[in-house]
Amino acid sequence: MSFVSVNIESGSETPVKLTRRALAKQRTRERVLSAARRLFSERGYEGATIRDIAQAAGMSTGAVFASFSDKSELFDEILTADYEVIYAQMKQAAREGETVADALLGLFGVAYSFHLEQLPLLQASIAVSWTRSDAAEKRARTDIKHLFALITDALERGVQAGELKADVDAKLVAEIAWDVYVANYRRAVYDGWTVENLVAHLREQLKLILAGVRA
Amino acid sequence: MSFVSVNIESGSETPVKLTRRALAKQRTRERVLSAARRLFSERGYEGATIRDIAQAAGMSTGAVFASFSDKSELFDEILTADYEVIYAQMKQAAREGETVADALLGLFGVAYSFHLEQLPLLQASIAVSWTRSDAAEKRARTDIKHLFALITDALERGVQAGELKADVDAKLVAEIAWDVYVANYRRAVYDGWTVENLVAHLREQLKLILAGVRA
Repeated sequence: MSFVSVNIESGSETPVKLTRRALAKQRTRERVLSAARRLFSERGYEGATIRDIAQAAGMSTGAVFASFSDKSELFDEILTADYEVIYAQMKQAAREGETVADALLGLFGVAYSFHLEQLPLLQASIAVSWTRSDAAEKRARTDIKHLFALITDALERGVQAGELKADVDAKLVAEIAWDVYVANYRRAVYDGWTVENLVAHLREQLKLILAGVRA
Repeated sequence: MSFVSVNIESGSETPVKLTRRALAKQRTRERVLSAARRLFSERGYEGATIRDIAQAAGMSTGAVFASFSDKSELFDEILTADYEVIYAQMKQAAREGETVADALLGLFGVAYSFHLEQLPLLQASIAVSWTRSDAAEKRARTDIKHLFALITDALERGVQAGELKADVDAKLVAEIAWDVYVANYRRAVYDGWTVENLVAHLREQLKLILAGVRA
């Protein structure tokens, strides 16, 4: 998947034949990730300890630490895997939109559909994003950069199509759209909004945001 | 302060002469709040337990529970006190702005100045806001409602002054401005932005948001 190869900066992932030992290691990682995903969803980031996760995965904490250096790395790994899953879908949805607004609603709609299926994990990830280390923030920004580029691409296609002003600050518009998109999840959490509710609200918000930059 | 009386729905806080016992109780509350504020700032919400807070305040956990039903109530009390402090300043700053953008930059600037002085507490409060109970969210919304009204008031004054379109959806604009204002704190947390940096960035964001609703 292109997202993965962009994300790995050295581009060193040549296909290798996994040895039996490497395969076992990979299976261990997967078991840990699966247990961690479940526990983070159920208890939030702070509420799930490495000890709990090891127990749920049926292994020792030492075995968990052989695969992951700490809880933060484990959590990041889950989120990165999720970004990889939705990136291709968001990209396609953006390309199918005829107008800028449709492209943006398409890509954000994919994200809403995906995250509403696992809302507690999303809540934990947003909460963590406010209190993580600088290193963890840097890793997260690398992931988000690719999603963010889909937004600026859609805006730039709007400029080329003559829909938006030529001098639009695509980065600034994308940032506002992103902030609003994220904040809307609060409505899903506390007001029970569905994907349809979120997309309808975002449509109104984008209409207002784009009004000032139309050609 | 008007903010307080609006906030207390029953409006039952008539001035009473405090008995010695009531005074002692109030001092206990203040000691707990002061210790809690320090620990939440240092360790985050999850990292500070009632036990830690009691110890820092030099009392038993039982004494803390005599004043506060749980950690969440304690945390809310600190934030509500902060809202009360900045509400009057934000209101004044908004009234001093000649244009809508100046009014909004004024009120948000007050908030940035206030919160940057205690950034770890703000980070904890935003993190908590994503994973709290429905009851805690409801209490927080009551607090925020008053700040939010300052934004819609400034927008409505802009309509009256002929600066904004008469049919502007003030609530929608206010919500977008608020979402962007909150998201900007991330720059203070991870990129070391100052109040001046935040206000300058918000100025560009508001220019874009308001561009579509100018008369």
